[in-house]
Amino acid sequence: MGLSEFDLITRFFNHQRVRHSGVELGIGDDAAVVSVPSGQSLVMSMDTLVAGVHFPVDTPAEDIAYKALAVNLSDMAAMGAEPNWLLLALTFPEVDEAWLTAFSRRLSQLADEYNLTLIGGDTTRGPLTISVQINGLVPQGQALTRSGAQAGDLIYVTGQLGDAGLGLKLVLDELKVEWPSARRDYFIQRLQRPLPRVNVGLLLRGLATAAIDISDGLLADLRHILETSKVAASINIENIPVADEVRALTGEWWQLPLTAGDDYELCFTVPEEKIALLEQQLNSVNVPCHCIGRIEPGAGMKVLHNGMNVDTNNMKGFLHFD
Amino acid sequence: MGLSEFDLITRFFNHQRVRHSGVELGIGDDAAVVSVPSGQSLVMSMDTLVAGVHFPVDTPAEDIAYKALAVNLSDMAAMGAEPNWLLLALTFPEVDEAWLTAFSRRLSQLADEYNLTLIGGDTTRGPLTISVQINGLVPQGQALTRSGAQAGDLIYVTGQLGDAGLGLKLVLDELKVEWPSARRDYFIQRLQRPLPRVNVGLLLRGLATAAIDISDGLLADLRHILETSKVAASINIENIPVADEVRALTGEWWQLPLTAGDDYELCFTVPEEKIALLEQQLNSVNVPCHCIGRIEPGAGMKVLHNGMNVDTNNMKGFLHFD
Repeated sequence: MGLSEFDLITRFFNHQRVRHSGVELGIGDDAAVVSVPSGQSLVMSMDTLVAGVHFPVDTPAEDIAYKALAVNLSDMAAMGAEPNWLLLALTFPEVDEAWLTAFSRRLSQLADEYNLTLIGGDTTRGPLTISVQINGLVPQGQALTRSGAQAGDLIYVTGQLGDAGLGLKLVLDELKVEWPSARRDYFIQRLQRPLPRVNVGLLLRGLATAAIDISDGLLADLRHILETSKVAASINIENIPVADEVRALTGEWWQLPLTAGDDYELCFTVPEEKIALLEQQLNSVNVPCHCIGRIEPGAGMKVLHNGMNVDTNNMKGFLHFD
Repeated sequence: MGLSEFDLITRFFNHQRVRHSGVELGIGDDAAVVSVPSGQSLVMSMDTLVAGVHFPVDTPAEDIAYKALAVNLSDMAAMGAEPNWLLLALTFPEVDEAWLTAFSRRLSQLADEYNLTLIGGDTTRGPLTISVQINGLVPQGQALTRSGAQAGDLIYVTGQLGDAGLGLKLVLDELKVEWPSARRDYFIQRLQRPLPRVNVGLLLRGLATAAIDISDGLLADLRHILETSKVAASINIENIPVADEVRALTGEWWQLPLTAGDDYELCFTVPEEKIALLEQQLNSVNVPCHCIGRIEPGAGMKVLHNGMNVDTNNMKGFLHFD
């Protein structure tokens, strides 16, 4: 089924301002045909969002479109790849032209911003589910992976952690606060419109030894780096960048930045001798980055708060909408 | 979510016999990294199957896995591409280890048969939905498309048409027949285990001027070739290869081969001067192919039965499970 509906979606993409030269054959055949420039590797990822699982069913179409693409762009950022092409598998319960129009338009806008071309996909009838398969380019051998962290490297994160987790608490009405609406909106936006750190990923090529995007919470995602790189780490909670509202939460406020997902900030490791170069590069993109700890030999993670060990064993690994 | 479940799936793929040299980084990072050999183009497609829409909800896991991959392999066949890598987005309602084991094992077997490597994907909780994103290689400029058919070309189809449509009638209990169980099974297998014609697609490079796989019925799919190539066609119903059981159906038996989907045979066009070479090539793969008509100048499709025009206007374009 679905050619007509996919047409509806692609109608908006056909007005895309940016066209990649590598597309030999786009939408409209049994498959797309693309060429990868010599000396470049192709970086491929696919992430799915399901209504009622990854977002509340009444989320506006624009927000769903944004997030479906943003979480995939974030994977490109974590790999140091330049986003290039995407395929979209969209499953929806009924043809709702207004919904599809809003969805396509927002997806198209964001794709334009990141110089991405829609080259194919599928539309099917069924429960609302969005799979985006995204493709980026990176010079051969320069992809950022999870496996290169070495003892002595410093651990950095971009932006602020815990914002999206706080946004989720607000959306779910789990937190009664009397904040100005601008602040409420800020945290909800951080949940629904995460900013993929593609520009940071690009400048980390040749600087970072390992990188990951924080989708499942700092502890869970940093642990992936440690396990893949076969190293340990110690991090200092007081160095983790958080909003004042997060720090003002009652109880152990750091549970939020340590375990809440959906921030889509980057966590990466850099050898000490490259820090000066890193800081210089970061200035050019104006993205705040903070050093939160250090890679150590061995295995496991030490979490310190003002020099005291914090027990993270009982902290829940994921805090998604579920 | 889902790393643990994706692990379960990849556990089986980690025993895959065949590994592609082009995989620089497989499952287990934020994205996969692959290299495309110089002189080759990448052919990319994505198709989704939804439980209750594309297959009955009680379909065995093995059949779902088979079909999800086969329909994507069929797209590679239609492009003349050699299947290479796949990404899998699997959404399922609950972790059912037996189901996942059966699903993964069958997917892995079929991937092995076609020399495909699983390089990434996503697992999410939700209504059962399977998106496969498949990637193949083709020498630059040699992909088969829908746009090259020219007046005078002969129109061919592989295999037999209408088998899967008959299988669907049997599965849905719409047809009461007293056939030997082997014949019943044959038609149901044709529905649930379509054979992707990858080997035919490969030998059509340089021979066929246009190609498509028949997923929505011969009329609908051939029409895509005609519209994209801006040509007309006339086809002869009596030349369409069908099973005896299809021909024995009461009423206009040809509705089934003309309009039933899910056969996943190829339809392609070949210039007359290349027919001898085509026949010779086809002998090497032992796949029956039949000439069913001819491309003509103009627009539209003439359908003839023993020289008489058949009115196809009232024929339904799709006959999917729905």
